[in-house]
Amino acid sequence: MQPHLRLKFISLAAAALLPAAGQAAETPAAPRPYGLVIHGGAGVIERKTMTAALEAEYRAKLTEARGAGYAILARGGTALDAVIAAVKILEDSPLFNAGKGAVLTADGTCELDASIMDGRTQAAGAIAGVRHIKNPITLARAVMEKSAHVMLTGDGAEKFAKQQGFEFVPNDYFQTDARRQQLETARERAKQKALGRPTSSLEADPFSRTARYGTVGCVALDQAGNLAAGTSTGGMTNKQFGRVGDAPIIGAGTYAHNATCAVSATGWGEYFIRVGVARDIAAQVEYQGATLADAASATLAKVAALGGDGGVICIDRAGRIALPFNTAGMYRGYQLSTGAAAIEIFGAN
Amino acid sequence: MQPHLRLKFISLAAAALLPAAGQAAETPAAPRPYGLVIHGGAGVIERKTMTAALEAEYRAKLTEARGAGYAILARGGTALDAVIAAVKILEDSPLFNAGKGAVLTADGTCELDASIMDGRTQAAGAIAGVRHIKNPITLARAVMEKSAHVMLTGDGAEKFAKQQGFEFVPNDYFQTDARRQQLETARERAKQKALGRPTSSLEADPFSRTARYGTVGCVALDQAGNLAAGTSTGGMTNKQFGRVGDAPIIGAGTYAHNATCAVSATGWGEYFIRVGVARDIAAQVEYQGATLADAASATLAKVAALGGDGGVICIDRAGRIALPFNTAGMYRGYQLSTGAAAIEIFGAN
Repeated sequence: MQPHLRLKFISLAAAALLPAAGQAAETPAAPRPYGLVIHGGAGVIERKTMTAALEAEYRAKLTEARGAGYAILARGGTALDAVIAAVKILEDSPLFNAGKGAVLTADGTCELDASIMDGRTQAAGAIAGVRHIKNPITLARAVMEKSAHVMLTGDGAEKFAKQQGFEFVPNDYFQTDARRQQLETARERAKQKALGRPTSSLEADPFSRTARYGTVGCVALDQAGNLAAGTSTGGMTNKQFGRVGDAPIIGAGTYAHNATCAVSATGWGEYFIRVGVARDIAAQVEYQGATLADAASATLAKVAALGGDGGVICIDRAGRIALPFNTAGMYRGYQLSTGAAAIEIFGAN
Repeated sequence: MQPHLRLKFISLAAAALLPAAGQAAETPAAPRPYGLVIHGGAGVIERKTMTAALEAEYRAKLTEARGAGYAILARGGTALDAVIAAVKILEDSPLFNAGKGAVLTADGTCELDASIMDGRTQAAGAIAGVRHIKNPITLARAVMEKSAHVMLTGDGAEKFAKQQGFEFVPNDYFQTDARRQQLETARERAKQKALGRPTSSLEADPFSRTARYGTVGCVALDQAGNLAAGTSTGGMTNKQFGRVGDAPIIGAGTYAHNATCAVSATGWGEYFIRVGVARDIAAQVEYQGATLADAASATLAKVAALGGDGGVICIDRAGRIALPFNTAGMYRGYQLSTGAAAIEIFGAN
């Protein structure tokens, strides 16, 4: 850590974490802030195409995931544990494009990517292209904690998982009828596009449209002042060639450092890799002293300038958060020890 | 691009690229600077363990790679073409851990990773875990230019290569006796270590020791003022589990942006991913106006603070370069249109 960073951290966190100068010694220190932010993907989510019943399902699952993570933080657990708990619930839900209900590749299988980073140590773990691990985020954590490596891929990652005693599930476990239908639509769309025909009617159902960038993620701050970030995804419908997006790339989809912030991204992965979204936000905090909101907006503007879109969730060590997106909507929620909390889906407009 | 970046670029490049204010209109503009830097890996390279004959081989091959790239720049070619030309020569040489002569995995095969980035457009391409593509850097470029993706992995990446008409070579093509011996040594070392026995004698030959981080890479600035960076590697001897290091990770092993700099890294990949080495250097230039030398040193200090080591090569749009490392040596060279040029192997001390 650079000396000036250490100083910067102390100055930004001082107001929130330390008793003010001149307070009597017996005054109890202000409680350390804690909390978390979650996302279930950004994309073309418009109120007019969403049924009330489906919206209620999304809100209930986001609330459950947020609550599981927050409960861990509230009882003094670690940010890493909170991230894992929240992401696992989103992975287990077929509503989101991660774990069960992940989108299908061109081969009709699910290939899953995930990553996690510990803001205290900058330890990180990532896996790409696994097909039989029920909760990819837990394998990413095992890579971080139980291997000498940061990123493992494909069959090799599963070989490691076997050594670590992970339970394997058949690829069918992840596949849902809704995602099979999306693959059919995507194939038909590609065919029509190749023939020069209009394709706009082929993405009409809200579930399909929101799937485009339906990554899930969580960033958390625990009572010890440690940050963590995690991201998990099934990637793109109809993906080919062992394509890897930003979710398992440390610095693109996921980044955490106690001196700056924790970030999890969701969006058009290729653009998010090129911009290095998560690291770029943290870099503005680190090198410019930017606010999280300004940094996140500037980074998303870079993504937009290249032609991409998506969203991010961010938290810093003072418990400040930002969750901007430049898509029509983003499944998202947060809960902070200050009492602030929300579950939201659509954009402000 | 952010407006302030555009301004910053103009100010830093003005002195080198534009005629000074007040010059008569007929004064020819100063020639645009151009040039390139190459590396063939950083590691435990000590003069006392290197024979004169082997040193001469390294110097000759580095000179050949540098010359091939520089010739392209000198005749007005692109930075991307120069990077490809230089890296291909290093990949084709068994002296370096990339392409032919790559280190062997635990399974006794070569698995190759590479990435490239275009500073003009921030387009990027990367491949990980390919086994049959003679020049991995050229496949990374095809991913960048001919696919909608940034990163392709494993068999999927080779399927894409086949569609693109790439020539396939048997994995034997990459394997050399020297690397087979290294794998045996690494296996023996792991066995002795597991038994609690001393292993220091098992890495005595200079070729083996230098292989530890023998990635290759090139960064270039062309006469049009465009930057590019490329990196190629065989990874770690005895690697398992589909491990991916920093070389194919955009922002870790490779990064280029005309507004800041082009960077290629070589080192202990896990640490380089966690720090996001290439992007972190560019971020200091972007957000702090740091010099390349200061930025690169600060980033390597972060790597060292976590316990890692390695080196980087950097060039900016004014033709300034930096090539620091915190290992005993780094195979490296540069040639600039100013006339500055060098081929070096050992550290200053």
